[in-house]
Amino acid sequence: MYTPPTVEELRPPERTLVGPGPSAIHPRVYRAMTTPVTGHLDDFYVEVMNDVQALLRYVFQTENEHTFAVSGPGSAAMEAAFVNLVEPGETVLVPGNGYFGDRMGTIVERAGGEAVSVDAPWGAALEPATVEAAVEEHDPAVIGITHGETSTGVRQPAVDDITRIAHDHDAYVVLDAVATLGGVELYTDEWDVDVVYAGSQKCLSAPPGASPVTMSDRAVEKVRTRDAPVESWYLDLENLWSYWGPDPGYHYTDSISTTYALREALRIVAEVGLDAYWDRHRRVSTAMKEGLEAMGLSLAVDESCWLRTLSPVGVPAGVDPGQVTSRLKSEYGIEIVGGLGETEGEILRVGCMGHSARAKNAVYLVSSLGSVLAEHGVEVDVEAGIDATRRTLEG
Amino acid sequence: MYTPPTVEELRPPERTLVGPGPSAIHPRVYRAMTTPVTGHLDDFYVEVMNDVQALLRYVFQTENEHTFAVSGPGSAAMEAAFVNLVEPGETVLVPGNGYFGDRMGTIVERAGGEAVSVDAPWGAALEPATVEAAVEEHDPAVIGITHGETSTGVRQPAVDDITRIAHDHDAYVVLDAVATLGGVELYTDEWDVDVVYAGSQKCLSAPPGASPVTMSDRAVEKVRTRDAPVESWYLDLENLWSYWGPDPGYHYTDSISTTYALREALRIVAEVGLDAYWDRHRRVSTAMKEGLEAMGLSLAVDESCWLRTLSPVGVPAGVDPGQVTSRLKSEYGIEIVGGLGETEGEILRVGCMGHSARAKNAVYLVSSLGSVLAEHGVEVDVEAGIDATRRTLEG
Repeated sequence: MYTPPTVEELRPPERTLVGPGPSAIHPRVYRAMTTPVTGHLDDFYVEVMNDVQALLRYVFQTENEHTFAVSGPGSAAMEAAFVNLVEPGETVLVPGNGYFGDRMGTIVERAGGEAVSVDAPWGAALEPATVEAAVEEHDPAVIGITHGETSTGVRQPAVDDITRIAHDHDAYVVLDAVATLGGVELYTDEWDVDVVYAGSQKCLSAPPGASPVTMSDRAVEKVRTRDAPVESWYLDLENLWSYWGPDPGYHYTDSISTTYALREALRIVAEVGLDAYWDRHRRVSTAMKEGLEAMGLSLAVDESCWLRTLSPVGVPAGVDPGQVTSRLKSEYGIEIVGGLGETEGEILRVGCMGHSARAKNAVYLVSSLGSVLAEHGVEVDVEAGIDATRRTLEG
Repeated sequence: MYTPPTVEELRPPERTLVGPGPSAIHPRVYRAMTTPVTGHLDDFYVEVMNDVQALLRYVFQTENEHTFAVSGPGSAAMEAAFVNLVEPGETVLVPGNGYFGDRMGTIVERAGGEAVSVDAPWGAALEPATVEAAVEEHDPAVIGITHGETSTGVRQPAVDDITRIAHDHDAYVVLDAVATLGGVELYTDEWDVDVVYAGSQKCLSAPPGASPVTMSDRAVEKVRTRDAPVESWYLDLENLWSYWGPDPGYHYTDSISTTYALREALRIVAEVGLDAYWDRHRRVSTAMKEGLEAMGLSLAVDESCWLRTLSPVGVPAGVDPGQVTSRLKSEYGIEIVGGLGETEGEILRVGCMGHSARAKNAVYLVSSLGSVLAEHGVEVDVEAGIDATRRTLEG
């Protein structure tokens, strides 16, 4: 018999989470998470699932019946979207402007589809005209769009224009809203998007592990008329819907405590109101930006497609971004991170998501990042940064 | 803009969870779950993952390096085991004696394998000789075994014998320990099993959503030398290991809070000691059985392969099991459930798992089930049942 390891109680550090997620969690959400677990098919729990569906429809701004949360990370929701919608042999356009577009491509290829990358540099948005040209050249069945690309801090504008192009060519649109749901304007129905997926730990500020998905009737019909079964049994829409749908039966045991937490996090958004919640993200991210710029830093993204829930701060010359992020963490308990993929070494990624998107975090981030950069010999005007942040927050 | 739904605060019912899972959660585990979330690659969180791995190796009784917890339900761990290990065109033997063997077969077929069901009636264990004959006939690459089949309450004895047969024929063994890990004797290394997976919400008594997997070096080597990539990008072992392995990088954002909870639940098992923890399951399940039998009921399973963590109680003649379970829930707050698949209508499934496997639950279950059956006109000697339960617990 092997002997047990000695493991002490958890002694967590205090962190200010202003990276690309997870974001800070509201005390009410922590409390909801300790709600006693019931059976995953208990009438009470079925009500919880119904509440989550109603609340998700609100934050997705949709009336889609097929709206639910997959037990798993946002990556599982991403995989669920593509493995259901894409049939072997089908062509899928994926965005070429960031890390998560590449990931879509990998998932599509694993599912037997052919991924074609739409040309766009990292750090810019897709141009509808470029998408249209690619659609005409490749005749895709599905088009993937990253609404918020956290590797670059780019938000995709004109989702509705791309959706129109897609539908004019009988293609379906899958929108990655992992970094945007709740944080920036997103209108699933108005934009006529077919599938949208997200994570729980970004702008919704629940713990990770219950990942929202919504699918239009049209998308569901495509899944239902597939020739080949969905390769993943666990993420097969029919199986998920046999649990989340109107007559809940056993598919798997849901991540009950995380779903309790997601429900409470969504309740908070609903109480604040989605408009006001978006507005808070806008106000706090603007204050961060004004502060960072007044200090002498700049964002590596055009204002027209700035994600806001994530800001790409250009790394000042001569600075090692890894040293900056680790010093911010060890001295100030702040989590921001470096770049990802092609942006590695180029940017610092500063988040402004959900319960982390608050005035105090804007001030604390700007002042602390300023101090750390000054210690590293960068000429920054920390006071001007703090002043600009405060004025923007008050204004 | 769609308007928000009105959703009230959670008002959970009090439940005594003695069904097939989830089981009751220890107060320490609820507390651990409210540990503040950090980044999923924070040094602190990497330590948490290391602790979980060390503790999982202990409960799996293994020194396998590749031991971790997938973010997702036990079904995701099951899918991870098969989609990694099985290559398209390979034959996989799956057990024909219960619901979860069927599920293995479905997953194998979706992954491009050919599933062959090993003959055995529901409610019995596999005979090593039958497995050997099937191995000789079908020359499988992989053999799936359900260690604890919750649809029937059957435990598979002689896992080591089956493993020996498999290895003599160059096949790999995947063991489903969802209902057994922590609850009944399981020796991964001693039995020489290649892959074992489990759930967090059964005998470990953590919330669902972080599902243990362990893989031998030999199994890892098979995955690494695949011709075709693993169909699931999310569950691809190489990707999972790029996160859980010695040099953690980004694959997905782990279900952090659930993993905190799993860590604490595993700490409790380690503190009690695995032997003593198994023994508690043995003692409490025996008390339940003695009580139910003394009352006049019988278990629909042979003692030699009785799962213990789940007991299949034969439905007395003339009784509607659905009425019994719903009355137990509404009047006593007790969750037990009816049969699943071929056992539907035939048995009531009574669990004895983790923090639910305690003396008070044995007494409460026996007395309450007795009362409900008596109300339904079944001749049961409730007092004799309670006496036998108490005596067994004390003895």
